[in-house]
Amino acid sequence: MSNKLPRDRDNDYSEDMAGKRRAFITGATGVALEHVGHYSVDPAVLPGNIENFSGVVQVPLGFAGPLRVNGEHIDGEVFVPMATSEGTLVASYNRGMRLTREAGGITTTVIDDAMQRAPIFVFENARYARDFGEWVSAHMADIRAVAEETTRSGKLRDIEQYAQGKMRWLRFNYTTGDAAGQNMVSKATRHACQWILAQQPPGLAHHSLAANFDTDKKHSTVNSLRTRGKRVVAEVTLPQALIRDVMHTDAQTLHYQRQLSNMGAMMANSVNNGSHFANGITAVFIACGQDVANVAESASGFVHGEVLDNGDYYFSITIPSLIVASYGGGTGLPSQRECLEVMGCYGTGKVKRLAEIIAAVVLCGELSLSAAIVSDQWVSSHDQYGRNRP
Amino acid sequence: MSNKLPRDRDNDYSEDMAGKRRAFITGATGVALEHVGHYSVDPAVLPGNIENFSGVVQVPLGFAGPLRVNGEHIDGEVFVPMATSEGTLVASYNRGMRLTREAGGITTTVIDDAMQRAPIFVFENARYARDFGEWVSAHMADIRAVAEETTRSGKLRDIEQYAQGKMRWLRFNYTTGDAAGQNMVSKATRHACQWILAQQPPGLAHHSLAANFDTDKKHSTVNSLRTRGKRVVAEVTLPQALIRDVMHTDAQTLHYQRQLSNMGAMMANSVNNGSHFANGITAVFIACGQDVANVAESASGFVHGEVLDNGDYYFSITIPSLIVASYGGGTGLPSQRECLEVMGCYGTGKVKRLAEIIAAVVLCGELSLSAAIVSDQWVSSHDQYGRNRP
Amino acid sequence: MSNKLPRDRDNDYSEDMAGKRRAFITGATGVALEHVGHYSVDPAVLPGNIENFSGVVQVPLGFAGPLRVNGEHIDGEVFVPMATSEGTLVASYNRGMRLTREAGGITTTVIDDAMQRAPIFVFENARYARDFGEWVSAHMADIRAVAEETTRSGKLRDIEQYAQGKMRWLRFNYTTGDAAGQNMVSKATRHACQWILAQQPPGLAHHSLAANFDTDKKHSTVNSLRTRGKRVVAEVTLPQALIRDVMHTDAQTLHYQRQLSNMGAMMANSVNNGSHFANGITAVFIACGQDVANVAESASGFVHGEVLDNGDYYFSITIPSLIVASYGGGTGLPSQRECLEVMGCYGTGKVKRLAEIIAAVVLCGELSLSAAIVSDQWVSSHDQYGRNRP
Amino acid sequence: MSNKLPRDRDNDYSEDMAGKRRAFITGATGVALEHVGHYSVDPAVLPGNIENFSGVVQVPLGFAGPLRVNGEHIDGEVFVPMATSEGTLVASYNRGMRLTREAGGITTTVIDDAMQRAPIFVFENARYARDFGEWVSAHMADIRAVAEETTRSGKLRDIEQYAQGKMRWLRFNYTTGDAAGQNMVSKATRHACQWILAQQPPGLAHHSLAANFDTDKKHSTVNSLRTRGKRVVAEVTLPQALIRDVMHTDAQTLHYQRQLSNMGAMMANSVNNGSHFANGITAVFIACGQDVANVAESASGFVHGEVLDNGDYYFSITIPSLIVASYGGGTGLPSQRECLEVMGCYGTGKVKRLAEIIAAVVLCGELSLSAAIVSDQWVSSHDQYGRNRP
Repeated sequence: MSNKLPRDRDNDYSEDMAGKRRAFITGATGVALEHVGHYSVDPAVLPGNIENFSGVVQVPLGFAGPLRVNGEHIDGEVFVPMATSEGTLVASYNRGMRLTREAGGITTTVIDDAMQRAPIFVFENARYARDFGEWVSAHMADIRAVAEETTRSGKLRDIEQYAQGKMRWLRFNYTTGDAAGQNMVSKATRHACQWILAQQPPGLAHHSLAANFDTDKKHSTVNSLRTRGKRVVAEVTLPQALIRDVMHTDAQTLHYQRQLSNMGAMMANSVNNGSHFANGITAVFIACGQDVANVAESASGFVHGEVLDNGDYYFSITIPSLIVASYGGGTGLPSQRECLEVMGCYGTGKVKRLAEIIAAVVLCGELSLSAAIVSDQWVSSHDQYGRNRP
Repeated sequence: MSNKLPRDRDNDYSEDMAGKRRAFITGATGVALEHVGHYSVDPAVLPGNIENFSGVVQVPLGFAGPLRVNGEHIDGEVFVPMATSEGTLVASYNRGMRLTREAGGITTTVIDDAMQRAPIFVFENARYARDFGEWVSAHMADIRAVAEETTRSGKLRDIEQYAQGKMRWLRFNYTTGDAAGQNMVSKATRHACQWILAQQPPGLAHHSLAANFDTDKKHSTVNSLRTRGKRVVAEVTLPQALIRDVMHTDAQTLHYQRQLSNMGAMMANSVNNGSHFANGITAVFIACGQDVANVAESASGFVHGEVLDNGDYYFSITIPSLIVASYGGGTGLPSQRECLEVMGCYGTGKVKRLAEIIAAVVLCGELSLSAAIVSDQWVSSHDQYGRNRP
Repeated sequence: MSNKLPRDRDNDYSEDMAGKRRAFITGATGVALEHVGHYSVDPAVLPGNIENFSGVVQVPLGFAGPLRVNGEHIDGEVFVPMATSEGTLVASYNRGMRLTREAGGITTTVIDDAMQRAPIFVFENARYARDFGEWVSAHMADIRAVAEETTRSGKLRDIEQYAQGKMRWLRFNYTTGDAAGQNMVSKATRHACQWILAQQPPGLAHHSLAANFDTDKKHSTVNSLRTRGKRVVAEVTLPQALIRDVMHTDAQTLHYQRQLSNMGAMMANSVNNGSHFANGITAVFIACGQDVANVAESASGFVHGEVLDNGDYYFSITIPSLIVASYGGGTGLPSQRECLEVMGCYGTGKVKRLAEIIAAVVLCGELSLSAAIVSDQWVSSHDQYGRNRP
Repeated sequence: MSNKLPRDRDNDYSEDMAGKRRAFITGATGVALEHVGHYSVDPAVLPGNIENFSGVVQVPLGFAGPLRVNGEHIDGEVFVPMATSEGTLVASYNRGMRLTREAGGITTTVIDDAMQRAPIFVFENARYARDFGEWVSAHMADIRAVAEETTRSGKLRDIEQYAQGKMRWLRFNYTTGDAAGQNMVSKATRHACQWILAQQPPGLAHHSLAANFDTDKKHSTVNSLRTRGKRVVAEVTLPQALIRDVMHTDAQTLHYQRQLSNMGAMMANSVNNGSHFANGITAVFIACGQDVANVAESASGFVHGEVLDNGDYYFSITIPSLIVASYGGGTGLPSQRECLEVMGCYGTGKVKRLAEIIAAVVLCGELSLSAAIVSDQWVSSHDQYGRNRP
């Protein structure tokens, strides 16, 4: 086949070029791209979001809620846009939202905030590497000043150091305003490293801007321990009567299932002792123009439950590396921006609100699925709602 | 606010109801849902894919390629649909596709295939649990027969056993045809467990259909070791000249960066020693109607490189738990089906072809980013292509 | 200094040569080796246990107990020899033994048994590697017959396969009678591999007898999941009154501390959610001539507790990779053999008895320390018993 | 049986009482404790090291070396006492010492130093927990002053914070002079916590001195990342000729085996990508009166190799959590003290010298075993030296 997708140096982001590319693909494969070609986004806004723009994928959107969140950046009810093709998902989260709403809502707290880039410096031996580490600590103010020259909203919080042999990774931690910030911190860190290199650290043998200590687009224990993006907690206390009447179970039963799931997760060495953070996060990420690949990091986490003396059930979820943005990236795409706006999460000063809402959503999904497993409604509800799913 | 989203028991999947829900949300929030309401999918096909259908999210789509794959289920070139809002992504994968095409293409192999559900059985003590394990092994044929009563395409391969204290998890491994199969295996396993319970295992104290030994929607070492979904490998050998002329580096330099990245991943306890499997997987998953939440599992993996005696560079990636489907779920949605058809991956007998293509895509992204990091073009190319990204 | 330790080709294991070596060291360093030279072991029995034999280290020995074990290989009370220099240790385990004795004793069960060697085979590509895997499965009987030619007591149970890229590890699982068996399985596996190589597997590029998939002398998730050595469980139910009167706490308090410790272990990514398996295992290992370096593997594990409806507390520990021997290695050394004999654990048919006792010992230590932490006696008891320890 | 071991409130640490206890055990079991009763240590020195003292275990001792160490706390050659019953071990380490001596010696560097206790504080909700964290940071000077009241040699370096839900762990990092320091830091941290509790932190619901975030006597990623005890590196460069003439292989071959072992360790999720740190560490720990149970932590680590342009081989090992002492604990026991003195490692100001030597020993063992595996001499040398080992 002709293997050159049509491109236009001057006018590549246009209806015309998108159509030409669809026609080219249709010519090469015989597949009509009718639905892909049906969109309302103006191609002119897409530079910076995609290359070879050819149309859109239409991901079904449903709303769940209202979700009641008692947070620091939102205190009230909100409808949550969820984009998915997995039957049962919206219904299941919706059930958890009803339950927690009746329990008085979900308390949410952003407890940490940091985005990283972690360059590596390799020395002639471990002694030079250690001494370099001390030099970095002593020159923190200089390094911060240089790094922050490249950005208005990024602030260099601190630099963690990790060492093996003659290698030393510097894990630069930034706050990044309302952006997710991966590019911002790459640029700032690169600039800081250029300055460091110019100081000619004794014994330096090799440098690279990244070597898997960040860790971007993949879960790691470092991220779980030390935060990447937002570290956010959602908590609820379910009254005994509600558990009985709505969930058709009791706190002891929920808690016993939790113990077994903790043991399973520990033995399997899972990155999450909960059930399915990923479902809720992904559906909101797609709806809201987040970088969906960050699900790989954002879906790990921890859950913890306690039976209180009065028979109520306390339950919390913690997401240690939730990568979110209310500005930049895909947040400005038309349908995605509408979804963000429905939750009051578009633009400046909104990123923590978004983080709190997502944490509350995740909590709802955990409770809903746990209740389904405990009451053995899990398989049957998938039969009811998910008949397209074999 | 009125907190009841409009629903209609008889005709809920209709343009009318979707419009009513959008109007309700607009009324509650003041946000016009113009772009969300712009779609060509017929709501009548959506039961089983979403609840509270209200419109769509338009995710920008670009094509990359052609990608040359020398697989067992595809031997030739293919254009790859990628849906994303992350600038640079399509361009970066495209660069890797050009490079590997010039190297003669990517060899792909599906080396394992298994989908799980892992019920737990808790006994009065560890001795009953151990004896139960032996009973299960002895009754494998019965259990298989019962499990397979519930499904045409699912086959129960084997049951792994994992034990702690008085608990025993049975990890049922199925092949599931062209479906991802999570629901199929839940149903079959539930049915098998009902039969097991009916045999009244001595000393049994508790049973649950799941307790985190599957592990669904989250990475675990069990999944990496023992496969979940498809275990698929992509390999390429890059000639020395190509590395020099196109990547502007050499095999030794690439390999040294790989060593450092391996050490970083090992220390950080990352679930992937590669760079960004998640980017390519997510973009293809969204385009092709896959269950995108499975990125949480599918994005983990391994990369391995070798400098050959002649200066060429051998490079491979392995995805141990790639959850894909060519049938069911979101694969039949109009725009998503078009994307699958462009790659010849829609419908019966196509799921391994899809797995092979995705593995090849992932490999391209690894090479492209590695080359960018090594040649320090990484930050600058994001500046060029990703200007919407702060 | 003269850097040649005295050796004697013909008579190296003798009092004379041991003395000459001590004299040489004293000459080189000025340190008198009086206590090192005080021993009753006959050097003539030491070939196979040590090279350059020069004397002994005297490790203080105390007995704890009696320990009541309700096992399959021991049903009764036993005094436990513990060699340590850590104050409080014997006293703490002794306290746990008294507690569990009053509770009626500890139920122990060996639930799995396997020793490994895991050779690697590297092929030209992943397809050859996968096909080799199928060939191995099909030739299991041949491979077993060849492997077992080298050993009387070793039996090849099965071979697990682990795959990445073009690499395939075969994890040979053996039972090894009363020996720990690392050397036995190395020899048998090497022999089997020679046979496999002689069959000229297509596409084979490289082979090595080991490449970190065993994993010997270090913890790994593979070992925890799939067992290395003995997988053994100890369980006890503590009556409510005993917890109150002897431990000065209650089941709920113990259980809450357990929840917090589970969360800590999970977040820290610890290889053990218990407290200090290593203390008891190490003290018994030194006393009983075990290969103490195996503490690195044997000290990982799992604990699980449950508050029963009547207020009693069920508690279990699981050691997934306990490496023990009642025969071979250091078990025949004079003082070590005496210690084994005190527990009826020396020689043929005794290894599972030893495994059960050690598991029961570990459980005692967990309960004792948990109670101390909960009742805040931990630091003060170290002050009382451990005054040599800064 | 009579189940009361003889004790004497006033004179328990005496030859007489030790003899009575041996007689009691002999009476109960029929086992003569002749060799256990053969010792030269004065029981009067043993309070603080053991309870129920009854004799000693005689662990065979050999010397290896000389080992050439180019460290900061030792620059020269030293003979290394190793206590073990595992044949081949001393010979194998000795071989590595000869090799590295001929290569000019091993460079060692202690790159970090910290001992921990990590109390947990649980609050009514996550917001109180977060605010408490900020309060702790603001009151660091007060907390330090209080903690250090309890110790002369311990210094509180800093406090790391780890958070999940409403829980907050404070990981107190101390330097502890020449002691391992676990008890010292427990006492200091308990004292600091009492002060913190007295300040009545708002919303505090529960406190415990430990909940598995230290992590004592067990490996964790936290310890590997953030150091526990000494973080120490050993490095060597092996000239090409030496690899060929003494190891009978070449740098490329060693390096390729290393790559495969890295992949194996990563997939198996091992805590060490090397071979057998535990062997050398354990043998030196027993000889030198260290707390041998710390092998569970100290045996994890990292190795890294590089083929240099001239064909030489650079190799390093890193032990991130080596728990050692030159003072206190078992270091003062007579035979153990002799062993420490042989290396010039007994008493004040010697602990880092000991850490450097152990790191160098570990490196020797890694090289020796790697060479044996690569040249297939591994099984045969165990046949020669380890004939007592089945």
